[in-house]
Amino acid sequence: MHIQQFAQVTTSFAAQQQELQALHLIPSHYQSLSLAELSQAVFAKLFPETSSTVTMQAALGRYLVTNTQNLAAFLPTANWDLARFNTVALQLLQFEVGTDFQLDQSAQFITQVGLNLLMTPLKTPQDFLQHFYTLLTVHTKFGITYLDDLTNRGYFKATQNFAHPLFFNGKAVAVFDPHQAIHEVVYVESDLDTDHDGKRDLLAATIIRPRETANGLTLPVLYTASPYYRGTNDVDADLHNVNRPFATTVPAAIPAEPLAPTPAPRAIHGTSQKTEVSCDEPNFYSLNEYLLPRGFINVFAGGIGTRDSEGVRTCGSPAETASTTAIIEWLHGDRVAFTNKTDGIAIKAWWCNGKIGMTGKSYLGTLALAAATTGVPGLKTVVAEAAISSWYDYYRDQGAVIAPVDCQGEDADVLAKLCFTRQKDAADYQQVKPTFDQVLQHLSAGQDRNTGDYNAFWDARNYRKHLDQVKASVILVHGLNDWNVKLRNPATFWQGLHHTHVTHKLMLHQGKHIYMNNMPSIDFTDMMNLWLTQELFGVTNQATNTLPQVLIQDNVQPETWLTPTDWNHLDNPQQHYGLSAHQLIHPTQRPNEIAQFQDDGGQHFLETQQNVTDWEQQLFAQTGIVAQQSLAFKTPPIAKELIIDGAAHLQLNVAVDQPHALLSAMLVDYGVARRLTPDPTVIERQGYQLGYHWLRTDLVEFTQAAPTPFKMITKGHLDLENTIDSATITPIVPNQDFTVHLDLQPMRYRLPAGHQLGLIIYATDPGMTLRTCQQTQYQINLAASQLNIPFQK
Amino acid sequence: MHIQQFAQVTTSFAAQQQELQALHLIPSHYQSLSLAELSQAVFAKLFPETSSTVTMQAALGRYLVTNTQNLAAFLPTANWDLARFNTVALQLLQFEVGTDFQLDQSAQFITQVGLNLLMTPLKTPQDFLQHFYTLLTVHTKFGITYLDDLTNRGYFKATQNFAHPLFFNGKAVAVFDPHQAIHEVVYVESDLDTDHDGKRDLLAATIIRPRETANGLTLPVLYTASPYYRGTNDVDADLHNVNRPFATTVPAAIPAEPLAPTPAPRAIHGTSQKTEVSCDEPNFYSLNEYLLPRGFINVFAGGIGTRDSEGVRTCGSPAETASTTAIIEWLHGDRVAFTNKTDGIAIKAWWCNGKIGMTGKSYLGTLALAAATTGVPGLKTVVAEAAISSWYDYYRDQGAVIAPVDCQGEDADVLAKLCFTRQKDAADYQQVKPTFDQVLQHLSAGQDRNTGDYNAFWDARNYRKHLDQVKASVILVHGLNDWNVKLRNPATFWQGLHHTHVTHKLMLHQGKHIYMNNMPSIDFTDMMNLWLTQELFGVTNQATNTLPQVLIQDNVQPETWLTPTDWNHLDNPQQHYGLSAHQLIHPTQRPNEIAQFQDDGGQHFLETQQNVTDWEQQLFAQTGIVAQQSLAFKTPPIAKELIIDGAAHLQLNVAVDQPHALLSAMLVDYGVARRLTPDPTVIERQGYQLGYHWLRTDLVEFTQAAPTPFKMITKGHLDLENTIDSATITPIVPNQDFTVHLDLQPMRYRLPAGHQLGLIIYATDPGMTLRTCQQTQYQINLAASQLNIPFQK
Repeated sequence: MHIQQFAQVTTSFAAQQQELQALHLIPSHYQSLSLAELSQAVFAKLFPETSSTVTMQAALGRYLVTNTQNLAAFLPTANWDLARFNTVALQLLQFEVGTDFQLDQSAQFITQVGLNLLMTPLKTPQDFLQHFYTLLTVHTKFGITYLDDLTNRGYFKATQNFAHPLFFNGKAVAVFDPHQAIHEVVYVESDLDTDHDGKRDLLAATIIRPRETANGLTLPVLYTASPYYRGTNDVDADLHNVNRPFATTVPAAIPAEPLAPTPAPRAIHGTSQKTEVSCDEPNFYSLNEYLLPRGFINVFAGGIGTRDSEGVRTCGSPAETASTTAIIEWLHGDRVAFTNKTDGIAIKAWWCNGKIGMTGKSYLGTLALAAATTGVPGLKTVVAEAAISSWYDYYRDQGAVIAPVDCQGEDADVLAKLCFTRQKDAADYQQVKPTFDQVLQHLSAGQDRNTGDYNAFWDARNYRKHLDQVKASVILVHGLNDWNVKLRNPATFWQGLHHTHVTHKLMLHQGKHIYMNNMPSIDFTDMMNLWLTQELFGVTNQATNTLPQVLIQDNVQPETWLTPTDWNHLDNPQQHYGLSAHQLIHPTQRPNEIAQFQDDGGQHFLETQQNVTDWEQQLFAQTGIVAQQSLAFKTPPIAKELIIDGAAHLQLNVAVDQPHALLSAMLVDYGVARRLTPDPTVIERQGYQLGYHWLRTDLVEFTQAAPTPFKMITKGHLDLENTIDSATITPIVPNQDFTVHLDLQPMRYRLPAGHQLGLIIYATDPGMTLRTCQQTQYQINLAASQLNIPFQK
Repeated sequence: MHIQQFAQVTTSFAAQQQELQALHLIPSHYQSLSLAELSQAVFAKLFPETSSTVTMQAALGRYLVTNTQNLAAFLPTANWDLARFNTVALQLLQFEVGTDFQLDQSAQFITQVGLNLLMTPLKTPQDFLQHFYTLLTVHTKFGITYLDDLTNRGYFKATQNFAHPLFFNGKAVAVFDPHQAIHEVVYVESDLDTDHDGKRDLLAATIIRPRETANGLTLPVLYTASPYYRGTNDVDADLHNVNRPFATTVPAAIPAEPLAPTPAPRAIHGTSQKTEVSCDEPNFYSLNEYLLPRGFINVFAGGIGTRDSEGVRTCGSPAETASTTAIIEWLHGDRVAFTNKTDGIAIKAWWCNGKIGMTGKSYLGTLALAAATTGVPGLKTVVAEAAISSWYDYYRDQGAVIAPVDCQGEDADVLAKLCFTRQKDAADYQQVKPTFDQVLQHLSAGQDRNTGDYNAFWDARNYRKHLDQVKASVILVHGLNDWNVKLRNPATFWQGLHHTHVTHKLMLHQGKHIYMNNMPSIDFTDMMNLWLTQELFGVTNQATNTLPQVLIQDNVQPETWLTPTDWNHLDNPQQHYGLSAHQLIHPTQRPNEIAQFQDDGGQHFLETQQNVTDWEQQLFAQTGIVAQQSLAFKTPPIAKELIIDGAAHLQLNVAVDQPHALLSAMLVDYGVARRLTPDPTVIERQGYQLGYHWLRTDLVEFTQAAPTPFKMITKGHLDLENTIDSATITPIVPNQDFTVHLDLQPMRYRLPAGHQLGLIIYATDPGMTLRTCQQTQYQINLAASQLNIPFQK
């Protein structure tokens, strides 16, 4: 077990005393108390489940201070020393004596696990307060601070009269009752008319705010723009057929997306502070739900074309971004919202302190990035998890049509359909369907699945063009094994942020397309709390300097988080490899040789109804027919570990015998090892608790799986007709060689000493590319080919 | 999509009107209203999210009545007919026009899905009321009644002054606010002293009761005895080694379990109505949490040896049963509980109406069965899911040591350790550890992993011996693919219940060791509500006659639930098969032949680090080395489907060349088919909602998987030294033949026409049996062997 915390803030003793008093954890006359008296007073507070002295004493009696004394017996004299205090502290943190640690070995255990308990001597009441203060900031075995554990056991229910909001160690404390929260819906009037009905699109926004805001308290907002918020449609029948030949004709010019003029705003017939619609939607994002009882108002909006809103879905378009920022403009006081869609009664976000943060994963994080690139006033920070920064990099790769993993046949039009949840209300859908069908046609044409090329459609969906507009601070979070939103998305955005003036931070975990907020090895939720408390409450809490600039989970050692200075830095040194028969060699030793393989366009894969996992295993192992459909090269076992950091680049001199063809390449780690599990293991079902009688979610961690012989490091795909760039077609002359540059997806991967680095060159990637069933002969001129790997010094 | 509801109760029109009035869904002067007026009044109630006429009208405007009219426009004249009403009804039930059904085809869709909407003409206000009443009882697309959907959207929050409790169509309605519930802990004094400390074991009981009980309302209790309630211990290191030879020595006589005399009861120094400890434990059983807002108090207790209780774990013993029933005795007023463990203040369950039901799955359901077999007063009914009825049938099979699936090396002592959560409190554990270690030794000796035989230890853990004591009604629920708690457990108990006078019902689903309460194809939760409302509230609601006696999910057709008259009936007719080379044949045609195979005691399995799934696939397919370690026999493709119903029986004449050996057999369904998924598919994440702003869980269903060539039907295991019975050792004379009788686990399986029935005879079952690495030669005299299969006429 290893626990790393980055959100513990160094606090002066004076501030510690003030904070402990604000929590009512020490009595007002604490300075006149002896060590024993102070200890008794403090420990008496730690069992909010008990409501009598007898049961409180019974609770104390469950903890051992020494082998011969329990805490209840010890406290009246309380001759603390460091070991005794930490022995009790560990038990309070739910580590078990005998199972997790030995009674006389608290110090060793603390070091081994990495707990940031105070290790200074403990003799005086002042010492005790400092140790106790620190204990409140340290994580339990179950991934939360001890203060959060106290909170979850009812501390703020049992004792009353706390400040609202309340902060401790720089972070907001859960003093608001989420069950008393007000749930309401308003309709924000955008400037858009995406459904071409001559009226500005109204956008439903759902607000969940602490009851205390009803009495004049203003609080910041965590806003999540989620096209999935009101459900999704089944689009299985709408997926594109990927089992078809390459297109042979270049499409006509992409028609411009139809834009309706902005209609006049609705007349305002009055104002109100009272909404007319409430809601009960599923909780679906535990970070927001964690922060709600801590005083962050939750706002959710589906955006144009989602159920109860107006407009249509346009997948990644500027209109979608405007529909996202419209909510912020209303929250910030810069836009009108109504209590309903018809009678013109305006309502203000009078409970909002004007500071808005955005959160969300995948499409939700994408819209947070999109909003950030507008510089919309009021948006102070975004936490974008697994976010797309350019939709081209989601559905395409260097001219090739590439599906996100497990989403074969999906494209922008399909996703628009998936989220067009106005479809769920029959009478509403009946009105808008003809318009949406037209918009879908434009999406389908614009995305251009024939050439796969970058065009005006995709350019309009590239948020990175507007990086210079970013005013909000940005935290990017991404999984290094995310093949849904591939790593080029955060990598390129991240490097772009270096050219802005905003604070930006990066957190990379070892997961796929998942959250990282319920892993006990890292205090992600605390970090977000610290960050958002600074950015949205304006509390001076050293968050910017306390949180690491870059945090990366190691891929070899479980529960290990590193803080390098950067990731994917363009100046990283490069290791160059030449290609020889089955080997990666020094570039100067490249043989004058042509290697070749024959791709069948996925024919065998389709005929044998193989699954992608099995196919991939055969590719790695170079067994079966797949071995003939690829070329594999390996280094000898490496003497010293290599940390790949950035985008590997493959330069190939290639000839094919067909006028259309694609090329794929992957890097593979060869070497039997107990790698991390692809999906995190559930450590404790429902073990991660978000508040008192509030939601729980599973506690998970990447653990070491059974030994495997290999693992993919990264891969990339390319349309061979895109030798210049993704926007330009260069026709292939069959059997004539040419040079191509293939960028693999950026990565951070530690290849341990003794392992071999492998490169596999192939073509059809049945889980992601078209499966044309075209027979194509590939010839690679090894003398003119090279692999470049950026690495961390 | 197919939906079957069994908990809709036929109700007179007079009662329907009364119930609708009690729900405030129709106004008091409803009898004077025209059809249009009545419709308008009723529909105005159906949108509790809206709090203004404008937003309510907007909600109505989302539904289509006909292709040209929405509901808001329709209602002022409201010329209903059946098709119009059902078109709206389907939308209210969240079926989507265009996606799920066509606007002009409601009747076909209703029939196809199996919705029990009223199909009589709709012309008068009276007709309307009857149709609307029925609609409230019909399931939405998301597995709940329309009334529950209304409830979940805040109906009982928006309107006030309902009766508490409130019943509709025979079932309790969610009018209690679970967030206002009182959470408290008391300590029940048992007659036990399992920790031998000279004091009666106190047992912590957690109570979660609606706030309204504080003012004198008494309600029934749903009690779940869960040894896992306060956590579990990690016992990986305590698992028994199964990679070892058969034991060669018969152990000495099993020592009797140590029983301490019952100490005197604690002195009572006073009484109180106020508890002194509250709690916040995870919600873990959605049936209880569904029923809490419906007026069923939830009580949880860990029992002896669990955290905060006294005593030690004894796994299945009579003491454990007594610790389970002690809570019921307190709830029923027959036993003392205290507010804490020390000062003798007694407290009564003054909020309980004296009627207790038990619920739970696995160990939890087991303790419900255990309690039922005591006849303890107050216990009116048990719903036992995947329950053990004799612990011998959990850890043993006909003399062989057999692990529950995925639990190799587990046994009664390991489970006792797993649940001995007093270990989590260091000071408490320090006191009791020496005693528990002694008890563990007795458990280890008593369970006797050497012979695997039935003895006094297991006999004390056979609840079926006390079937004649059962006074509570019993509902057994079990998965037909549960290889954790194998089907002999419910099958034998079920047949035993036929000899009692209690009402008993059986529900078998196609899952493994799972719940069946979140599958939209069946209204399990409604059935439980109906049942518990009758049994615990005493409401006359026809539950006994309305609910099927036996409900079985079909294994071929998804979403299909059958109601045969019985299961595993001992008089079921038998099909007899003889064994020939690779064939199952007519018994008269048995060849005079010896078939043989060589078992390696799992050596190859262990050496190649194979996983059980792969091993099993090879066994079914008879490929690899496994084919030589088994004998396989198949029928020709069967002309007519065969419904196996009960326990298949294999009679074998066998000789082995070793003095110790085991034997296994399985039945296999051969035939390429799209079978049901082994685990249910998540249909809608968090789609199953238990109440207003209350918990949600996933909605799941068994769907058709990709085609597979075979599936195991059932299996069984036998120690060859147990030819007479499980309690008697008959030494094997190597190489001398003898006859054995192997009972396979009872099953219900529909083998479709065209498939082949397969029998595989083998020995080591690496996921369940010992893996001795012993080389054993098996000879089967086919002329003297026979397979008997009970089937459903």
